This record gives sequence, C-alpha cells and structure tokens, in this order.
Amino acid sequence: MKYANRMKNLHASEIRELLKITERPDIISFAGGLPAAELFPIEEMAAVSATVLKEHGEKALQYSTTEGFQPLRKWIAERENQRIKTKLTEENLLITHGSQQALDLVGKLLINKGDVILCESPTYLSALNVFKTFEGQVLEVQTDQDGMIVSDLERLLKETPNVKLLYVIPTFQNPSGKTWSLERKKQILAVANRYDVAIVEDAPYEELRYSGEFTLPMFSFPESKNVIRTGSFSKILCPGLRLGWIAADVEVIEKLVLIKQSTDLQCNTFTQMQIVQFVQENDLDAHIARLIQAYRSRRDAAISAIKKYFPENTHYTRPEGGLFIWLELPEPLNTTALLEKSLERNVAFVSGESFYAEHPRYNTMRLNFSCMNEENIEIGFKILGELVHEELAK
Amino acid sequence: MKYANRMKNLHASEIRELLKITERPDIISFAGGLPAAELFPIEEMAAVSATVLKEHGEKALQYSTTEGFQPLRKWIAERENQRIKTKLTEENLLITHGSQQALDLVGKLLINKGDVILCESPTYLSALNVFKTFEGQVLEVQTDQDGMIVSDLERLLKETPNVKLLYVIPTFQNPSGKTWSLERKKQILAVANRYDVAIVEDAPYEELRYSGEFTLPMFSFPESKNVIRTGSFSKILCPGLRLGWIAADVEVIEKLVLIKQSTDLQCNTFTQMQIVQFVQENDLDAHIARLIQAYRSRRDAAISAIKKYFPENTHYTRPEGGLFIWLELPEPLNTTALLEKSLERNVAFVSGESFYAEHPRYNTMRLNFSCMNEENIEIGFKILGELVHEELAK
Repeated sequence: MKYANRMKNLHASEIRELLKITERPDIISFAGGLPAAELFPIEEMAAVSATVLKEHGEKALQYSTTEGFQPLRKWIAERENQRIKTKLTEENLLITHGSQQALDLVGKLLINKGDVILCESPTYLSALNVFKTFEGQVLEVQTDQDGMIVSDLERLLKETPNVKLLYVIPTFQNPSGKTWSLERKKQILAVANRYDVAIVEDAPYEELRYSGEFTLPMFSFPESKNVIRTGSFSKILCPGLRLGWIAADVEVIEKLVLIKQSTDLQCNTFTQMQIVQFVQENDLDAHIARLIQAYRSRRDAAISAIKKYFPENTHYTRPEGGLFIWLELPEPLNTTALLEKSLERNVAFVSGESFYAEHPRYNTMRLNFSCMNEENIEIGFKILGELVHEELAK
Repeated sequence: MKYANRMKNLHASEIRELLKITERPDIISFAGGLPAAELFPIEEMAAVSATVLKEHGEKALQYSTTEGFQPLRKWIAERENQRIKTKLTEENLLITHGSQQALDLVGKLLINKGDVILCESPTYLSALNVFKTFEGQVLEVQTDQDGMIVSDLERLLKETPNVKLLYVIPTFQNPSGKTWSLERKKQILAVANRYDVAIVEDAPYEELRYSGEFTLPMFSFPESKNVIRTGSFSKILCPGLRLGWIAADVEVIEKLVLIKQSTDLQCNTFTQMQIVQFVQENDLDAHIARLIQAYRSRRDAAISAIKKYFPENTHYTRPEGGLFIWLELPEPLNTTALLEKSLERNVAFVSGESFYAEHPRYNTMRLNFSCMNEENIEIGFKILGELVHEELAK
C-alpha cells in the first residue's frame, strides 16, 4: 500500500494510547482530559433519549441536514449571544463531531501544503496533528502569564511569508491551564488583523471557571474579523456523545458545510435531538454550576498537593478554570522517563514534550485534575512528588 | 479569508440540497438514498438506549478508544466472517462515522495531490467529492451490465502513470443499481493486483438483496491484497446514528486509527454501545429480512410503473437489491431541466449528471425506491412518466 505523504507527519497521540492503560481500575490517572464520569447526568440523559425516540423516533434515526439540527443551532446561537455578547443566528453555526472535528474541517478549509500555522507554545497536541495532516508547518509563538507574547508574534509574522492561521486557546488553555488577559487578546487580534491572518479561537473549557473574572473572547470584539470560534459539549455535558460546533461568518459556515458533506454527511441526528431535549428539560447552567463546584475543589486539592509534595523549585500554573495544571520540574528531569516509573506505581500523567510544535521542553508535564477525586489526587500527587524527589536525589 | 486550493474543487451535493426540499410533507421523493423510516426499530432502540444508560451510563457518555468499542468491532468481525468467508478479528476493524467517513479517512491515508482515482461511470457522488477534497484526479472506467469493463481499466492503467486507487461499489451500485458478476470481480482484482493499485470496495447495500444470487466480494478472494472494505449500519439499521466501519489489513487499520485520532478522536461511545446492545437483544437478520420484503415489493412496483408510464425507449436497470434504479431517457431530454418541472408537480428525483467524474450524460436520472410506499411510487412515477412524454412531444 502506497500511503500519502502526509502520513510521514502523523504519530500516535501519547494521550490516546495512555487512555488504554488508564482504563485499568487500579490506575490513578491525571493523563487524559477526561471529565468526571460520576457527574454525568445519566438519568436525565436516559429520560430525554426515551422522549426523543417516543415522540420523534423516525426523524431521530433518519438522515438529516449537514448543517445540523436547526433547533440545536438556534439554541447554541442564543446561548452564545447571551454569554459572549455576539449576534449570532443559526446560520452562523455548524454542528460538528466534537471540537476535534471542528479543527479538521477548518484545516481542510484553509490549509495548503506548506502553509504556516502559528500556535501557543505549548499547545493542544491533537491540533498539531490536524495541521500536519494537511501538510501545514506549525511554528510556536512564545507565551507568558497573559497569553501569546505580542512581540514574538509580530517577529514571526514579519519573518514568515505564508502564515495562514493563528490557532489559540485563550481560556484555561490545554495543556498549560493559562488564561489570556483582555488587554492581550486586544493586542493579538490587532496584530492578526494587520497581517490579515485568520484566527481559530478554540474554547472548549470556557464555561468551567472556578475563580477570577470572565472576559470576552476575541470572537466577540467589534474588531473581530476572520475569527472562527469552536465550542463543545464534551466538557459541559459529556464527551462520549461527540458533539461540538463552529461559529463563524455565514460565508465561512457555508464553505464548511460543503466540506462536512464529503467528510461524513452530518452529525448523529439522534444525539443532536437528545441534547436539544436535554437543555429543554433540564437546567444546563445548574449542571455546569455543579461541575464547577466539584472541579474547583479538585483544583484546590491539586495545588495544595503540589505545594506539599513537589520540590520547591517546581514551577506550576494556577488555572482559573478548565482541566489542567502545567508543571515545569527542576532540570534535568525528563518527564518521559519519569512516566515509565510512575506507571509502575500506577500513576499516569502526560509528559509535556508532545505539546510543543518545535522545541520540546523535556522537564514539563500536564496534570489533569477533573477526573480523580480529592483523595486520589492526594495519593497520586504524593506518589509523583516522591518519585520526583527520588530522581533528583540520584 | 484565504481558502485552501481544494475548495475550488468542491461543490454542494445536489442531493443534500434536495433533502431540504424533500422534507416538505407534500413532496413525493425518489431523490435521497433514504431508508424507509417507518421500518426503523424505534421501540427496540428505545429499549437498548435505556439499558445501556442504566447499566453502563458512565462508560457510555465518556471518551473511549479511537479504534471503536471493542465488542462492536468483534461482533462485526464475526458477522463478516460468517457472511463473506473472511478471517477478520477486531484488529482488522475501525469504527467510523458512517461509511462516508470511511471514504474520507481512506482518502487521507492514500491520496496525494494529483494522484489518480479510477471509479465506475457513473459512481457515488459524495465519493467524488472526497477524492477532490484531497486534490486527487478522478477518471471514469466504463461499465457494462457485469461491472467495470476490464479492457477499459487496463487501457487507463497503461496510459496513466499515477493511479493510486480503484473505487468501486460492486453490489447494487449507487447510482446505477448494477451488480458485478463473480467472474468480473476476479478479472478486475487480477488487473488491480498486476498494476499494484489499491481497491476500495464500498459495500453499504450488500445485505439488501431481493433477487438473484449472492457472490463474494473481492475483499474475500484469496488473491485479495490491498483491498479495503467499507460497511455501514445506515441501510441495515438506521442512518441517523451515523455508524459504519472499515475492514482492512491490521497495518492499514493502524494507520487509519492515527488519522481518525486527529480527525475526530473517536465515534460516539453511546451509539456504539446502543448498537451492540441492539444486536444482543434483537435478531438483526430478522430485521433485515423485513426490510428486504418491503423493499422488494417497492422495487417491483417501481419497475412496473416504469414499464407502464415511461416511453418504451427508456433504458433502465433492474436492480437485484439496494435502493436505486438508473434511467436513461430518450435523447435529447435533459433531466436537470426535467427536475425543475417535476418539483413543480411535487415529485423529486436526482438528475444523473452529477454522478459522472468526467463526462456527464444529461439524459440520465436516479430513482430511489426505498423511501416511498407502493402507492406513492405509482403516483410519483406516473407524474414523472407523463412529464417525460410531454417533454418529448414538444
């Protein structure tokens, strides 16, 4: 079999592979980006599944339009308008198979072989893989505690002729947990506009805020042009249903609909109707409030445990929301080697190197805190901290 | 927004656009490839949805592995082994978001810009769009009543240096309704092997046979190498759930898993578990037998109505299964012009021209017979036949 050239760029996601190991019940896992399954609204989901099939069974199991179920698009538009002060209608929305597919469709829409994509350093691993699928070249923009560093972005835009896209996760970033300041968002948007570069603003974690203050995404700014926003039900409801969306200008959505037609025709009709029924019968905001309460407590437990068990010169982020804490261990510790040893002690995490598009930092790691309860966070972080101390003492 | 070059190749699927019109309840539609919604096992699906959520709710709503739910892959492997005499294990299977996604993933795996894909003339419209997405060039191989014409395939393979892939639907083809003979499958496979060209054998309709005799697909032949098979639950269960599969060598599946990771992570966990529960609690074969009984009667009604209402010099296929009849009307009738007029009379079909990769034949049309009952087939075909007579008399 003669594979396409793009296959040379693709490597297995360490995280997806780790997911298999972490299915073992004896493993304490901080590896995946898994929401807490015990908080899924299972009974409510059973109720709405029954209602949808009883009342609209034929429709729910039949083909439907590529754009997505109209009441779902309308509901998302209205919710976004309220939350982030936009003026969206259903015409601005395409339903996708999770926000991962949103990235794939946008990649198809924009990226020619050799086009440059700029992203945060570090950034979401599976976005890197999407861009590589389309034979794009991904370059890193340096970041500080407020987001992408403006001067580094400008330098790259000056030096690089064929930048097509800026890919960013400004709120509770994966993997770093960082959130951009409002001022920084304004500055970065202004630079992107000046160089006529499109922005993909990925926002799957935005509603999971435990502290600090919400600020509008770039997509909502009056100066916003060529900003594509992606969202997801994975973190606010459940990821197994694989449903997300793209919000963008009508013209962009129309092009993306063409692409989705040939990619997989449409999303699962039944799932789309399940979610509409869910938000009609239940209070999604109240559900998210319960998630926030639980995750806040886990974040706090994780931060305390880092202070307690890790070496003093460990650097770590203190996320205001989302699912992840990012650690930089004292050099020359290598977290890939560390992972092997921690798995022997039944604790999993993700080493940081695969989140870098260009220059991996081998002493970094990502710790997820949403999936394990406070007790397991305490136990698992203690094991990790002890292991780090042992390695440093060698 | 600066779009990628591939966007120049993409045009809206006339059929997906027609689907919107045909949602009107007063339309008699032979346009889509819609299964009969009144035959969906709605109550059974409600029962299994409840069971899955009650017994495995947390698992069903959580992330799972990219390959697909293991019991589903195992079940498909065993069923295929029985039906088509293969020796598959779950390692040979990847679960996809319908067989449309199977084509997209295979396109990503194989097609470089400029690669040539050979397909039947006419062929499945949305496969053409997939191959164009990857900037492949699609060339037509002529067909007769037994399948692809061997000499025409050989001519093209001799003349064309960079043929990557042969895309075929040997059983109850979309749009023609034709089925290849066993002998022809052997010949075509031999030629493909000689030129070292991969084959995608698309088989979504294979189980819907109303007459004639089943013969093994090329995928099952001992000489089979580099044959990728795609299958789907859309036509044997329901399309709204968007679930299909790819069967291939383990090495090919492993590469496809990498691609699927970056495309959309995985298929809907809940849906995969629904289907496993469905086949455990219900007799899928008995369900398919009911579909066959209903569709056979509709096919027969459609063939009678063509004989009764269409001009004598209309050529049409007499499909042994599947969902479609293909018509060639007397020249110079143009079915795109005809469609506009038939929609005025509330009857929809698909004009044939968009099913051709290179040389459209404007006097052709595809008629679906699975979605409308015998009464509507009689009424709708009568209207179409009268319209054709009127146009010819002009």
